[in-house]
Amino acid sequence: MKYSQFYAPTKKDVAKTDSINAYLLTKAGYVSQVAAGVYALLPLGLRSIKKIEQIVREEMDAIGGNEVSFTALQSEKLWQDSGRWDDENFRSILYKDQESGMTLAPTHEEPMVVAVKEAIQSYRDLPVLLYQFQTKFRKELRPKSGLLRGREFRMKDLYSFHLNDEDHQKFYEIIAGAYTKSYDRIGLESYRVKASGGFFTKQFSDEFQVICETGEDEILVNHDKKTGYNKEVEDQIPASEKDKLERVKGIEVGNIFHLETKYSKPLGLEVLDEKGERQTVIMGSYGIGISRLLGTLAEVFNDENGLKMPKQVAPFHIYIIDMTDTGKGEELAELLEKEGYEVLLDDRETSNGGKMVDADLLGMPIRLVYSKKTAEADSIEVKVRETGEVSLVKEKDLLNHLKKLLS
Amino acid sequence: MKYSQFYAPTKKDVAKTDSINAYLLTKAGYVSQVAAGVYALLPLGLRSIKKIEQIVREEMDAIGGNEVSFTALQSEKLWQDSGRWDDENFRSILYKDQESGMTLAPTHEEPMVVAVKEAIQSYRDLPVLLYQFQTKFRKELRPKSGLLRGREFRMKDLYSFHLNDEDHQKFYEIIAGAYTKSYDRIGLESYRVKASGGFFTKQFSDEFQVICETGEDEILVNHDKKTGYNKEVEDQIPASEKDKLERVKGIEVGNIFHLETKYSKPLGLEVLDEKGERQTVIMGSYGIGISRLLGTLAEVFNDENGLKMPKQVAPFHIYIIDMTDTGKGEELAELLEKEGYEVLLDDRETSNGGKMVDADLLGMPIRLVYSKKTAEADSIEVKVRETGEVSLVKEKDLLNHLKKLLS
Repeated sequence: MKYSQFYAPTKKDVAKTDSINAYLLTKAGYVSQVAAGVYALLPLGLRSIKKIEQIVREEMDAIGGNEVSFTALQSEKLWQDSGRWDDENFRSILYKDQESGMTLAPTHEEPMVVAVKEAIQSYRDLPVLLYQFQTKFRKELRPKSGLLRGREFRMKDLYSFHLNDEDHQKFYEIIAGAYTKSYDRIGLESYRVKASGGFFTKQFSDEFQVICETGEDEILVNHDKKTGYNKEVEDQIPASEKDKLERVKGIEVGNIFHLETKYSKPLGLEVLDEKGERQTVIMGSYGIGISRLLGTLAEVFNDENGLKMPKQVAPFHIYIIDMTDTGKGEELAELLEKEGYEVLLDDRETSNGGKMVDADLLGMPIRLVYSKKTAEADSIEVKVRETGEVSLVKEKDLLNHLKKLLS
Repeated sequence: MKYSQFYAPTKKDVAKTDSINAYLLTKAGYVSQVAAGVYALLPLGLRSIKKIEQIVREEMDAIGGNEVSFTALQSEKLWQDSGRWDDENFRSILYKDQESGMTLAPTHEEPMVVAVKEAIQSYRDLPVLLYQFQTKFRKELRPKSGLLRGREFRMKDLYSFHLNDEDHQKFYEIIAGAYTKSYDRIGLESYRVKASGGFFTKQFSDEFQVICETGEDEILVNHDKKTGYNKEVEDQIPASEKDKLERVKGIEVGNIFHLETKYSKPLGLEVLDEKGERQTVIMGSYGIGISRLLGTLAEVFNDENGLKMPKQVAPFHIYIIDMTDTGKGEELAELLEKEGYEVLLDDRETSNGGKMVDADLLGMPIRLVYSKKTAEADSIEVKVRETGEVSLVKEKDLLNHLKKLLS
């Protein structure tokens, strides 16, 4: 891809008012702020988001998930039917068009229950495992954490429907494993942390947290087990565990909930069991904040020069700067694209210095520079953004070298 | 894919109140109605939508489009700044949260102008061609056409920014070609039809229409040229053309607009031209109704037994029913999946008759039946949904036969 034909407007003067992630992602042309807590994805940001979603999709499919796409519009009446309308905290985050009585769903337990109720009759139809990548709306009054807490954001949410608690518990552990695997593949180390159930359940829930100084949450973590506790449940930590925990800041990148019959009961979701008796279906729900993950990557992987995107989810693998007028850069880009790499060739009419600055800012894993000096040594300069390591690599060795760095 | 693990709940009693597309797509388990004019996509519907989007994406990329993803939330003030707020028709379709003053964007000219204004300075930065697949919201009071006119729907919208009219006119013709190609690839014959500019422009716009008895629009078409006129501009048809036109009903599946400086001027989007003088940027906008296309496919391709999805956008290519207990169906499904076909194997605990009914209802292009009778002839029964043609094909010839039918 030639930069001159790609819309990635980097910015010189971005106010540092909001948060590191909003500052860096705006400056690097990944996102464009529309309003407080509302960010449009520009091509670089969208490319990363698609890769994050594809990793999560594969992990959800691998455990039997069925992908759907539900709607944002939802009648107020449904929240009343389920009883959630009585919760003032919940009601306060709902966008609502008063004229029509339609709201924007901040979560989808209720509409999923309604759809599944129309579709299943018997225990033989269970489990049902539905997930979506969908846009959520939450009326945050003072959003100030960039993509970490938006008023409009992408989320992966899965809803599971089971005959009994035992089946649900089994699935709960399976999806917890799929979450850990998803974060690993994205390039983030996650901790499974006990927390309260919020407005979903009175049981513990599990959060998945990434340690980060700028995180909103205070958590106590066990580094060996990659587990921990959210401060909100600190009272309940067993004495035997306490001295193994470190107190750190974290960003919550996912959460999973036991819902029992909290929504299925008021909405009347029942099936006939093996004995022909009616049973209320047991539910769980499981979320991953997709746009929040992009924000988290920016918070965790950066230095004073810009972003350092992990290779699995970087918008491109390789950034090429050709300081000569030999056409070598374009040749190289074509060759590497044929090998399956995603390449951004900086062919803009800008100074070489400006291109070097933007290469660091955008944060692709590998930067290649071809210049008169490297040409004399039949070589290309290779910089690894993560470590900062720069080396001269013989042209004939380049493919093997990149294979090692990017596999 | 095994049907027993796939969420495609077909329905027996669906009211015929709404429209053919809503009736068929609901009955066949492609969609689930959430409210009037609001439909959730179930896995079958989502699979088709993804294929439609991928075809359109490839055609937009081929003409230099850059994919982005803007937001639904938009402040009321922006519509005021552009002057569109003064248009009562426009204002009446806006969902609005009164408390926060946020609205849901029914179209994205204004937010695109704002973002591009922050990013470009010079004629060298033009053209800018941004497109997205995004969810739109329009407050239709009495939606009654299923997926043809929803209150929440998927749309592909592209916005182009040019230095002058000439550049814009060239691009307008290029994207018109990309639209025709997209519909062709989806399996729909389209007509390019002159229409009024609606609330976008005073110039003619071009609509892309698919002829269909149940369509909302009255159009006059030239079958040789695949062009025509919307009834709303009938006055202006040249006399020489009139007798070549047939009056038919159509479904509008896309539209393209000259915007001139209608939005760039009030919002102050200017660049410096070659002489260093400030020029207001010329714009166009171009829409394809993605969920409407799924509705159109259902309206156009059906019979009394159900859907007949074109092979390019059917959720699966092949539906397999195995009436024996030999495991042959599963073996066949695995073989065909290895060959790159998408296969739905009906392994549900249902009668064979019920499976035959659902195969027609779901409307995959090819149905394969393996039974004791076909086994005796070393054959598989192959039904082509589109034509209804049924034949016995020797097992050894099956792959070649399918290649011909599905290429």
